[in-house]
Amino acid sequence: MPTVPPVNPAVDTVDVNALLERGRTLATPVLRAAVDRLVPPMDTVAAYHFGWIDAEGRPSDADGGKAVRPALALLSAEAAGAPAETGIPGAVAVELVHNFSLLHDDLMDGDEQRRHRDTVWKVHGPAQAILVGDALFALANELLLEIGTVEAGRATRRLTTATRKLIDGQAQDISYEHRERVTVQECLEMEGNKTGALLACAVSIGAVLGGADDRLADTLESYGHHLGLAFQAVDDLLGIWGDPEATGKQTWSDLRQRKKSLPVVAALDAGGPASKRLGELLAADAKSSDFENFSEEEFAARAELIEEAGGREWTSQEARRQHAVAIEALNGVELPEHVRAQLTALADFVVVRKR
Amino acid sequence: MPTVPPVNPAVDTVDVNALLERGRTLATPVLRAAVDRLVPPMDTVAAYHFGWIDAEGRPSDADGGKAVRPALALLSAEAAGAPAETGIPGAVAVELVHNFSLLHDDLMDGDEQRRHRDTVWKVHGPAQAILVGDALFALANELLLEIGTVEAGRATRRLTTATRKLIDGQAQDISYEHRERVTVQECLEMEGNKTGALLACAVSIGAVLGGADDRLADTLESYGHHLGLAFQAVDDLLGIWGDPEATGKQTWSDLRQRKKSLPVVAALDAGGPASKRLGELLAADAKSSDFENFSEEEFAARAELIEEAGGREWTSQEARRQHAVAIEALNGVELPEHVRAQLTALADFVVVRKR
Repeated sequence: MPTVPPVNPAVDTVDVNALLERGRTLATPVLRAAVDRLVPPMDTVAAYHFGWIDAEGRPSDADGGKAVRPALALLSAEAAGAPAETGIPGAVAVELVHNFSLLHDDLMDGDEQRRHRDTVWKVHGPAQAILVGDALFALANELLLEIGTVEAGRATRRLTTATRKLIDGQAQDISYEHRERVTVQECLEMEGNKTGALLACAVSIGAVLGGADDRLADTLESYGHHLGLAFQAVDDLLGIWGDPEATGKQTWSDLRQRKKSLPVVAALDAGGPASKRLGELLAADAKSSDFENFSEEEFAARAELIEEAGGREWTSQEARRQHAVAIEALNGVELPEHVRAQLTALADFVVVRKR
Repeated sequence: MPTVPPVNPAVDTVDVNALLERGRTLATPVLRAAVDRLVPPMDTVAAYHFGWIDAEGRPSDADGGKAVRPALALLSAEAAGAPAETGIPGAVAVELVHNFSLLHDDLMDGDEQRRHRDTVWKVHGPAQAILVGDALFALANELLLEIGTVEAGRATRRLTTATRKLIDGQAQDISYEHRERVTVQECLEMEGNKTGALLACAVSIGAVLGGADDRLADTLESYGHHLGLAFQAVDDLLGIWGDPEATGKQTWSDLRQRKKSLPVVAALDAGGPASKRLGELLAADAKSSDFENFSEEEFAARAELIEEAGGREWTSQEARRQHAVAIEALNGVELPEHVRAQLTALADFVVVRKR
């Protein structure tokens, strides 16, 4: 029997790991030089956060994350016909803003672990987590503005808009945790702010630095926004059913934090006996003084009900829907063929990843 | 006997309160509109911080601070020959950054009161203090960058540099609290970062928005930097000997926080019996488990030793020295005569204030 040829042969030949690796290789030295500008002890605390040193200050080579954003920022420059290198300051600025938000969010959410390591507030205290987060945010703007071009000014403006949305999204996320019901629409809006906006910025910032017009930049942002929503839907699935070995988080991580993530919200919205039972259980949990001591089995039972009510399947489909819209958005503009194939391959990677 | 005529009669006729009031009147509506952009509950939390509502959400008219920075930003525009109104976005951006730092610093320092009211983290929790601080910082950049001119880009760059220094200064301030000895030089460097940089930016940002060249902007920054050092020296005096009724802080506020402020550092550096005795006491305090329960008398005894060792007098003189350097800096450039008189009068106000 003949094998079926792939629909888009170019996509199948894209080496996504090489793309991610290129982003890391080009961005990391600039990121390290930026962090070196901080006065002690902020330089050390930031180096710990990025995994370059351990808690005792010894050189280390810890997992620095997937680095999807730097890879996108470099591709973004190529999308505008500029060399990938033109996107480097954009890649670094976006990484700085992303890590500013991780430092502050981990503290606000009380998360003790990230990427298999103790979080900064746990090792260096809350004040350093606040301060170094602030410093990374400021550094991001400094790095772009010191380029001094009109393009860099436009890039900074897009980054600032994205950062404002990121903060809005975190505010919504926190306020939803205290509410009994959140609609699917509210959840998608929050995730668009919290994850979509910065991914959208990553995919447009290189192009803007490379002199792209607003139409190309906006189209790339649209791709990035929907890619972000797909990314977050997958993250929400991993937050409940992810393998702790792969994610570096606790089992049932999002359930332990009462996160109103997509699977939960979709399950509560679905109706039917499992949905109703889930609603009763979560309402009781919200008042329970014993929640901190819940067993693995109790969380497993809640995850089971979410799945039974259809929340897991709905979220998987949502990831695929957003993935399709992202790819579709790219059809609106002329792009170098290899860039289109690489952006498509990165979108595929985002929805099949295990961590 | 004839009265001695004032050296600069114009200065004596400047109404500093009217200048401060103009800054408040022109900046506040734009500041409120900016804060209204935040998603709930951040808009409410920010409105509480600025004193526009009370902890229950009722309209209030609390003390919003001295508003020296907005007054300076408007004068700054006039220094470049532009209308005062040109400085408004700069005034608001600087106020946003200043208040971002207050929100985060109060949390990091554990300060429960500011301007006679409970601080944000105390009323709305640490997460909101972090989040709303972040949001104000982002809003500051947004407000400037959406103007979209080359001048606005230059203004944002100066604001970013100042913000980075502000964060450096807070990092130094925190790290000094854990050290036994800090030199006067280190203390001045920290205060230049923490207070000088943003005041310097306030005095240049209006001029930059009004099209000033770098020479005028740098001169205004120099005035602002030294004014900031004078301002902070006075703040350090008020932090120990200020009247709690006027300052809105606890008695011996900085001593309770083990702040290595100028009077303390100068006293420790002075040598002599009182200096030696102070050093021994503070070293013992650092190890004391009972420090939290110290009586008024114990703090008063430490303040007495600081004064005896000459720390209070040295700091008063330092305020006057920096005041003189600030005024002197203005001689390097052409300025409209009323602007020069007003900048001089504001400098005078800063060193004689009681709160």
